Amino acid sequence: MKKIIGIIGGMGPLATADLFEKIIRATDAARDQDFPHVIVDCNTDIPDRTAAILGGGEDPVPQLARSAHALEAAGADVLVMPCNTAHWFYDDLCLQTRLPVLHMLRLTADRLEREGVRAVGLLATDGTIQTGIYEKLLTGRGIRVIKPDAPGQRRVMSAIYDGVKAGSIDAIDVPALRRTLDDMTARGAERFVLGCTELPIVFAQCDLPYPVADPTQILAEAAVSYAGYPVKKM
Amino acid sequence: MKKIIGIIGGMGPLATADLFEKIIRATDAARDQDFPHVIVDCNTDIPDRTAAILGGGEDPVPQLARSAHALEAAGADVLVMPCNTAHWFYDDLCLQTRLPVLHMLRLTADRLEREGVRAVGLLATDGTIQTGIYEKLLTGRGIRVIKPDAPGQRRVMSAIYDGVKAGSIDAIDVPALRRTLDDMTARGAERFVLGCTELPIVFAQCDLPYPVADPTQILAEAAVSYAGYPVKKM
Repeated sequence: MKKIIGIIGGMGPLATADLFEKIIRATDAARDQDFPHVIVDCNTDIPDRTAAILGGGEDPVPQLARSAHALEAAGADVLVMPCNTAHWFYDDLCLQTRLPVLHMLRLTADRLEREGVRAVGLLATDGTIQTGIYEKLLTGRGIRVIKPDAPGQRRVMSAIYDGVKAGSIDAIDVPALRRTLDDMTARGAERFVLGCTELPIVFAQCDLPYPVADPTQILAEAAVSYAGYPVKKM
Repeated sequence: MKKIIGIIGGMGPLATADLFEKIIRATDAARDQDFPHVIVDCNTDIPDRTAAILGGGEDPVPQLARSAHALEAAGADVLVMPCNTAHWFYDDLCLQTRLPVLHMLRLTADRLEREGVRAVGLLATDGTIQTGIYEKLLTGRGIRVIKPDAPGQRRVMSAIYDGVKAGSIDAIDVPALRRTLDDMTARGAERFVLGCTELPIVFAQCDLPYPVADPTQILAEAAVSYAGYPVKKM
């Protein structure tokens, strides 16, 4: 039985479009009718997740639940959420919907463990870093986590917020970002976890030839498979 | 008052993703919360529109209406439909929804008239060509319509179906397509109407430096504006 995929989106809009397109491109299909039915709620009323975690920002859970309910009403069978930071609120969201929610970060940690990766560089928002959610998932699987130094973390945040979210890829200081990635490589990072859904867009549009684990791509493949469709071999 | 945009999608999936991304990129915004709320129903159960028009194919209207109702239930205020051929069923769809539906082809014809274009090359599916819908809209505004010859029309159909819809851009015979476009230019086409939502993807991914009118882009800008958001100057 085929399932309808519901995307709780808007965090941010371009990252939502990226997951949607990755779901389509990850499907092994030859005509419109062979692709999964996907419903996207690009709900831009969801408050900033990092601001909520660091303190002072509005709680995003009511709007996450609103999207879950809209997607239920529209016919979705399973939910996905293309925002790493929002997964800090995963349990609260699950309490408010009757639908299963695929967990992007757990899927990513599982994939890295399966592929025998020993140490990763973690690129994520201040909010995601602060929660320690990736660290818990990865160190629990025997994978060492290497984080950027303080100036490097500011560069990552700027690429996400001033670059992709603001629609100004040109604003990204690519040479500085490279220095951060080179430093993390020197400290042992075998692969970079693109732990914010804006980062695959940064890596695709800037010239950054580093080995990565892309949680958006991993989630796309898991969603296609869960919905009952064949995944395209890359 | 801001409005929620509902996309009746799946015709095809990549064309749906293209409109969604064009809506985001057409918005003049700097953070997640400044973009329009968009709900996409990528409904791959909608039967092929060209097959229905040419005879024998299943009527797409019940599934178009199903998507309209799902989008209503999820909270949409206005509908758009990123499929030129599906606009042949526009009136039937409007009878089945209480929401306004922006008319992509009319918006395109209006834009061409406003810009003083005198003759266009029409690139579209056999279904759209057969209905004469673009011809009616354009000749009514004093714009001459130039169509491909029979082999050229087969090349356009192949680029749409064997190329984009099948996820095989490499299958497109680009030199042959260029010969068709050159012939139409010689016959007076000042601009090419990309009258099938797969064609902007063909033109973006193959090397085809011809002047175009892109109905997906025109619809994206109209939707952003209708929803009450500022359109980015290109």
